[in-house]
Amino acid sequence: MGRNRFQHVALVGKPAAGIGPVIEQIRDFLRQQGCQVSLERRGAEAAGIVGYPVLEPDEIGRQCDLAVVVGGDGTMLGFAREVAQHGTPLVGINQGRLGFITDISFEQFREALTPILAGDCETEERAMLEGNVWRDGESIFSGLALNDVVVARGAAAGMVELRIHVGEEFVANLRADGVIVSSPTGSSAYALSAGGPLLHPSIEGWVMVPIASHGLSNRPIVLPDRGVVSLEIVAGRDASVNFDMQTLSQVQHGDRVTVQRSAHKSLFLHPTGWSYYATLRRKLRWYEGN
Amino acid sequence: MGRNRFQHVALVGKPAAGIGPVIEQIRDFLRQQGCQVSLERRGAEAAGIVGYPVLEPDEIGRQCDLAVVVGGDGTMLGFAREVAQHGTPLVGINQGRLGFITDISFEQFREALTPILAGDCETEERAMLEGNVWRDGESIFSGLALNDVVVARGAAAGMVELRIHVGEEFVANLRADGVIVSSPTGSSAYALSAGGPLLHPSIEGWVMVPIASHGLSNRPIVLPDRGVVSLEIVAGRDASVNFDMQTLSQVQHGDRVTVQRSAHKSLFLHPTGWSYYATLRRKLRWYEGN
Amino acid sequence: MGRNRFQHVALVGKPAAGIGPVIEQIRDFLRQQGCQVSLERRGAEAAGIVGYPVLEPDEIGRQCDLAVVVGGDGTMLGFAREVAQHGTPLVGINQGRLGFITDISFEQFREALTPILAGDCETEERAMLEGNVWRDGESIFSGLALNDVVVARGAAAGMVELRIHVGEEFVANLRADGVIVSSPTGSSAYALSAGGPLLHPSIEGWVMVPIASHGLSNRPIVLPDRGVVSLEIVAGRDASVNFDMQTLSQVQHGDRVTVQRSAHKSLFLHPTGWSYYATLRRKLRWYEGN
Amino acid sequence: MGRNRFQHVALVGKPAAGIGPVIEQIRDFLRQQGCQVSLERRGAEAAGIVGYPVLEPDEIGRQCDLAVVVGGDGTMLGFAREVAQHGTPLVGINQGRLGFITDISFEQFREALTPILAGDCETEERAMLEGNVWRDGESIFSGLALNDVVVARGAAAGMVELRIHVGEEFVANLRADGVIVSSPTGSSAYALSAGGPLLHPSIEGWVMVPIASHGLSNRPIVLPDRGVVSLEIVAGRDASVNFDMQTLSQVQHGDRVTVQRSAHKSLFLHPTGWSYYATLRRKLRWYEGN
Repeated sequence: MGRNRFQHVALVGKPAAGIGPVIEQIRDFLRQQGCQVSLERRGAEAAGIVGYPVLEPDEIGRQCDLAVVVGGDGTMLGFAREVAQHGTPLVGINQGRLGFITDISFEQFREALTPILAGDCETEERAMLEGNVWRDGESIFSGLALNDVVVARGAAAGMVELRIHVGEEFVANLRADGVIVSSPTGSSAYALSAGGPLLHPSIEGWVMVPIASHGLSNRPIVLPDRGVVSLEIVAGRDASVNFDMQTLSQVQHGDRVTVQRSAHKSLFLHPTGWSYYATLRRKLRWYEGN
Repeated sequence: MGRNRFQHVALVGKPAAGIGPVIEQIRDFLRQQGCQVSLERRGAEAAGIVGYPVLEPDEIGRQCDLAVVVGGDGTMLGFAREVAQHGTPLVGINQGRLGFITDISFEQFREALTPILAGDCETEERAMLEGNVWRDGESIFSGLALNDVVVARGAAAGMVELRIHVGEEFVANLRADGVIVSSPTGSSAYALSAGGPLLHPSIEGWVMVPIASHGLSNRPIVLPDRGVVSLEIVAGRDASVNFDMQTLSQVQHGDRVTVQRSAHKSLFLHPTGWSYYATLRRKLRWYEGN
Repeated sequence: MGRNRFQHVALVGKPAAGIGPVIEQIRDFLRQQGCQVSLERRGAEAAGIVGYPVLEPDEIGRQCDLAVVVGGDGTMLGFAREVAQHGTPLVGINQGRLGFITDISFEQFREALTPILAGDCETEERAMLEGNVWRDGESIFSGLALNDVVVARGAAAGMVELRIHVGEEFVANLRADGVIVSSPTGSSAYALSAGGPLLHPSIEGWVMVPIASHGLSNRPIVLPDRGVVSLEIVAGRDASVNFDMQTLSQVQHGDRVTVQRSAHKSLFLHPTGWSYYATLRRKLRWYEGN
Repeated sequence: MGRNRFQHVALVGKPAAGIGPVIEQIRDFLRQQGCQVSLERRGAEAAGIVGYPVLEPDEIGRQCDLAVVVGGDGTMLGFAREVAQHGTPLVGINQGRLGFITDISFEQFREALTPILAGDCETEERAMLEGNVWRDGESIFSGLALNDVVVARGAAAGMVELRIHVGEEFVANLRADGVIVSSPTGSSAYALSAGGPLLHPSIEGWVMVPIASHGLSNRPIVLPDRGVVSLEIVAGRDASVNFDMQTLSQVQHGDRVTVQRSAHKSLFLHPTGWSYYATLRRKLRWYEGN
């Protein structure tokens, strides 16, 4: 039985049938390593695991020293938002193709977790975005995003027009399919598809990327993550705002979406030797020749 | 006679014939404002102004409290590098189309300079790049850049291949016409032409932009400005390195170009109310519709 | 009274209140030039013009020798589709900012129309796209487009996945926000916003442009306009197809959208000396420096 | 001994030491198939093959019914230009990674060549560019290109400025690192690196792609391949023009580079079932997800 830095470990599975045996193998390993293990309730139920202590995400945030998330980047993004205010350290184990932030393969989970449990790992903080929708002077919606906040036109509508400020300073009016305000973490996701640059995770900024913008000179811009980015809906029907592509809210003319740095950060643990650039090369075939 | 924060002001003209009367008007104005005025030697000579105290750039850096630069962004870039180590505050007056960093028109120089001389202005620091070329373990060339350091293939040659590191960490091998490492200041110059994003001047990072890269996924990336970016020439004939598009040095296989944050910053003074975003809109027709 | 190549001219107004006086001025001018003039019914009604012969678009196509369209590019696109099968020559008069295909300003309509009515003009054919939606082997929807056919994801949905063929030949699977198949006419519209190239109107091809594509190497491709482009919806909720951004149809998994060259072409008349490239320079500030 | 459509076959090797055994295996196979075989002189000499009939490229064009080219796309491009006026059918065998136009692997050359020699193959014509450099009314240089004609700035120089016409029609002034006029064949080469679209080989057009253009709206444009594209050097030191990245000529202010469709086409033979789109997917990981 090992000597661990992390006493109480939560095990969070992608809520999908069939993941049960995977969860059980990792659970048994963590217990052999001397950890107290709790399962995240929703994932445990979906996997059909019964008779084992379960916790809600918020309880995990308050009680556990570490959460091991089994699934893809989407599962990790969702759980990271749920425990954001607690700063729970997170490790990602991926059954399929490795992700950007779930970078340990299930085949190697033992070799990878053993040193991490002993505290031998890279610790990486990732900034989060806090978004609000304002109507008539009140916030009618708020949410956290690890990747991005997106304001986009309705499916059957023409372009949306947005009036953009940073703090009190007017930036520009934008007519486009939409706009993405992305953290460094999100810069390798939707923002990249829309033509944005990559941002190293240590950059203290957001990248604002227009989607199919009407003007040809509307290049992406990297904005400081201090201050508030404000996007006011000036024109366009059925516009919506979403956070990490999951939460959705209809917005109307005159509504204002604000984005600012959250007081919370996500904390990811990686095996020693982990390299952000290696992840880019692997995931994006980045800078590989043809 | 006014009361000025800046006693000794240098007046730096683009070295071009015909600029004499412009220089003289600004000089007379500065003297009326109670400043001691010296002229930068090269510009004064090119303008044919004689019988007036002249200083070399380095003397200006040591002796003057402010330098007023008359010309375009290119003139300003060149002079800013020359006084970089002294941190001399700089103001730009432009006879033609306003630039990104020379944003006072000659027509309005009196209205603009009067409050600035009284200390009523926006002060903006801009990071500078320090580049070195290493061969056989020794630095054979070094230079400063306010915009960018560019490594590019020779005119009659095929692609250049570069091995890129940030600190000790391997980033990627790149085959391309070249690569640009740009400061936020340079992000609206050559890096933009090559497909890079804009970086707000307060972002503590460089953007690395490949030029006509062989691989289609080689997106621009924003790197932290701490640590050293290293570009080793692996293949390609007649490659060259330049700093702010002006200084040129041939580089060979095995040479390594390193780029890091200079200990010096350029200090620009702008009229109160100056807006970076307004400059973008004016210069790039940025986010204007068609 | 002049001698005209076009006996019976239709006058088509953007269906908007306030356009009445404009329509009447052009009508009177055309009658002075010896033309029989009919008004398009919908525009005449919106303008509140009564007691004057009106025709439906289809009747215009069958009976008139020329249609003068007053409005912007959107009005012209809509009417051009309606008379497509008749090949009616079209002239566009624009009250506001000149468009790509409505290139005569209202201020100059007399000087511009006089030689056109005498047959002194540039004649330009533009290819049209014919689109169909197939479900269970039957076409459930068909439409014409002068600009583009677009298949896009639902507003609240993730990416759409499309399986693309040209004729019998498999092209690629695409995961993206959507895809645009654009004619040369449409290449300066939405396809351009999404990153596509311009296609000179004489190019016998379509450009297929992915919108915010997941893969970084998914460049736009210019396809021959012979054969059928087929887009099968493989995954993605609430996907839709539209034609010239106006007609909308929900599509489901297994549906196939096909696009082929229409047997019909639109026929635009321009003042002699009209230049496609001049239009690009004017509309896009194309190839202008900053 | 088979019955072949092609009696006299030329075997053209990349001029590189070590290629001898490869050439000899293919030669022996071709003779077994009943062909008369000649070797291209330069390749044979480089490979050290003696005592076998050799021909110059021009003799191959006049005497041979087919040329089998062993090497990469660069070898094929060079040889295709040399026999362009003869229309000799070409087959490419590649020892390394398959190219765009050399698409038979050495491992499978027997299976691939057998049906081709019997006339069972896909035949594909590719348009070629004819370029001229004009000075003081005379052509001082002319050349053929299968991929592209490129006008670019000197290595130590700033941007080049070009005045562009198509036929007599003014297109635009361009300030950039350079401009690429590319055939469909070249659209997957340098033009793609510089941000151009792909052009299906059957498209009767060129794509003009600016390199690092100063203006942000200077999108690539597909031009008809009828008429003459003219690029006049207006400003910029040490500019050069090259054809397929190989031939180089210095050009001066006032020089005009013209590009038009060559009367000649290259004729490539591919194994039955060859697919242009499959080549794109393989070479560019085109439209593959991440």
